[in-house]
Amino acid sequence: MKFGGTSVAGIDRIRNVAQRVKAEVDRGNEVAVVVSAMAGVTNQLVDYADQAAKLYDLREYDVVVSSGEQVTAGLLAIILQDMGVAARSWLGWQIPLRTDAAHGNARIEAVEGAEIVRRFAEGQVAVVAGFQGIDVQGRITTLGRGGSDTSAVALAAGLAADRCDIYTDVDGIYTSDPRIVTHARKLEKITYEEMLELASLGAKVLQTRSVELAMKHGVRVRVLSSFENTPGTLVVDEEEIVEQAIVSGITYSRDEAKVTLNSVPDRPGVAARIFGPLADTAINVDMIVQNVSVGGETTGLTFTVRKSDLERAVKVLEGLRDDIGYAELIADPDVVKVSVIGVGMRSHAGVAQSMFRTLAEKGINIQVISTSEIKISVLIAEEYTELAVRSLHSAYGLDAD
Amino acid sequence: MKFGGTSVAGIDRIRNVAQRVKAEVDRGNEVAVVVSAMAGVTNQLVDYADQAAKLYDLREYDVVVSSGEQVTAGLLAIILQDMGVAARSWLGWQIPLRTDAAHGNARIEAVEGAEIVRRFAEGQVAVVAGFQGIDVQGRITTLGRGGSDTSAVALAAGLAADRCDIYTDVDGIYTSDPRIVTHARKLEKITYEEMLELASLGAKVLQTRSVELAMKHGVRVRVLSSFENTPGTLVVDEEEIVEQAIVSGITYSRDEAKVTLNSVPDRPGVAARIFGPLADTAINVDMIVQNVSVGGETTGLTFTVRKSDLERAVKVLEGLRDDIGYAELIADPDVVKVSVIGVGMRSHAGVAQSMFRTLAEKGINIQVISTSEIKISVLIAEEYTELAVRSLHSAYGLDAD
Repeated sequence: MKFGGTSVAGIDRIRNVAQRVKAEVDRGNEVAVVVSAMAGVTNQLVDYADQAAKLYDLREYDVVVSSGEQVTAGLLAIILQDMGVAARSWLGWQIPLRTDAAHGNARIEAVEGAEIVRRFAEGQVAVVAGFQGIDVQGRITTLGRGGSDTSAVALAAGLAADRCDIYTDVDGIYTSDPRIVTHARKLEKITYEEMLELASLGAKVLQTRSVELAMKHGVRVRVLSSFENTPGTLVVDEEEIVEQAIVSGITYSRDEAKVTLNSVPDRPGVAARIFGPLADTAINVDMIVQNVSVGGETTGLTFTVRKSDLERAVKVLEGLRDDIGYAELIADPDVVKVSVIGVGMRSHAGVAQSMFRTLAEKGINIQVISTSEIKISVLIAEEYTELAVRSLHSAYGLDAD
Repeated sequence: MKFGGTSVAGIDRIRNVAQRVKAEVDRGNEVAVVVSAMAGVTNQLVDYADQAAKLYDLREYDVVVSSGEQVTAGLLAIILQDMGVAARSWLGWQIPLRTDAAHGNARIEAVEGAEIVRRFAEGQVAVVAGFQGIDVQGRITTLGRGGSDTSAVALAAGLAADRCDIYTDVDGIYTSDPRIVTHARKLEKITYEEMLELASLGAKVLQTRSVELAMKHGVRVRVLSSFENTPGTLVVDEEEIVEQAIVSGITYSRDEAKVTLNSVPDRPGVAARIFGPLADTAINVDMIVQNVSVGGETTGLTFTVRKSDLERAVKVLEGLRDDIGYAELIADPDVVKVSVIGVGMRSHAGVAQSMFRTLAEKGINIQVISTSEIKISVLIAEEYTELAVRSLHSAYGLDAD
């Protein structure tokens, strides 16, 4: 069981968590619980580090920010004991949960869960501080924001758990955002691959890396609500889903901005001269389209960056104007990326065609297209977001009855 | 160097601490710094534990409350590095600072400082989270409130440090409370024994146990201000003080209450029947006087407890009235204990006599007297506190010129 920051924000909420843990124990299950810091605590600690120095030693940053989960773990153990449930807290270094030395964003290498398993046999619940591990030097590491999801999945894999339940403030994975699509349905099951696409498209339910890890180790992950009693959504292997829909969901991301460079000299190495400096300043480029240059000497190049990176990207590119030799730079923050996701696409042709036709029927112009094996994304003007998402949700037969 | 909670309350104050550390490094010293939690943080964490359960597992309490020092240690290391001083943080379990398993109030057993010393040679400052250690089970322990003083002294002993500087919000040890005695002088040096008496009399400058530890290991402790640049007071062995004054200071404690039992049957075992039940309810009894019973069958008994324990003590004793068989119980919270302290008393007669005469001249009635080798304490009516302390300060020649 894993509980995030809003689920443990204050003693009363931690008591609610303890009740859910007790219910699992009463059902005869052996339970390890991974907890995040109380909501707001990690931000406060990060803010301290930012105030302390502009550039800080990430090993020390990890010492500071890992303390929030430590507090929650101790408190939950106290409350469980108070309810008559045997429990003890485990910090990353105590398990140990071993990671590489990439402080601030470490990768888990091994979870030594033997002692926890031994104590399961004595009826003891393991309360584990999420987000943290220990490197080979014996220093505390952290797993990056949202890392407690990854802690939970890694622990579930290490303990060979039957299931990893991620309790959060939503009650499952939906076919689309219910705030936009009133007919959105909660999915009973979703595949790892689809969940990965959802996570990387900005659905904040699960950290991307936790889904990768679950897929790699075959950990059955369930996403469900800390506050309601609904079954949630199970994230599983494709084989477990008997009747797979062709399309599982429609997502959108407003955190996109479009950059177009016109009349770029069409010669080898120009892409490297554009995208190299952007990468060097930690600007992620997502969709890229280069116009086909028919015999001409120049071409056009369009790509997307995160909206928050747009200003910096423009600055970098303006500084490179002479070097690249483009004629015009157009920046457009008013775009949205709409995606259709489904593992069923692999075996069904015509999914992309349906998407393009549906959008065309509504008079929505497609600016950029990108595809993966199980996803088609298009960039459109932001004002069409709701219209596009709702139309596609209907077109693929996802609307609830 | 050790800095308490008010000295590290916020990033600006931690920066001030870092500047003091840098100054020591620049003087060519090898430095270990012990830090407390930021002011208020430990109280907040203790409050969480109290909210979590009435009676909690002290092992989990230690997990929760030790996190405050962890944050300060990481932040100070970041700020020192930012100032160009090589530094790393050390948590109790990383050093390791080994303690017994008396969670919440553990005693230090060993400090393994070899790695810290090795890094001194590389010019690295050790920033140590105070108040915490690790027990033989690998669980975090804490040393009781104010335990960072003890951490600092133990570390100084373990590292064979030349000095242990305790930075605090007062600038040294005074001959008396400057708020009452305007002529109070700051002592250049004071002996461990005198400091121990001061600490146990409620002077909150140093934790009692830290002074015991310093005395045992011969650690030269200096008490000085975090905020001013004054030399402070050195706590050392008696032999280091060439010209020892007979009396070093006059202290007082208002945290006293007097209980008198009249007409107690004077037979063996009665004291045990009174003080046993008080001890069982964790009420500390300090001064005790029994009237000499001249051939009579009853005697009177007077003793003091902490003011905050008075109500409970009265309740316990009223419940034992039939068992003890006393005629009358008188409780008086309006008393103060005034003490004269000085190792010179050992070799000089007449110190007590001066005290009694001085108080008599001012018309102050002595209710109870207790003495140790280097201290004479009297209990008097609280309204005479200032008069008594000032008169004694003058009588023993302690007034500043």
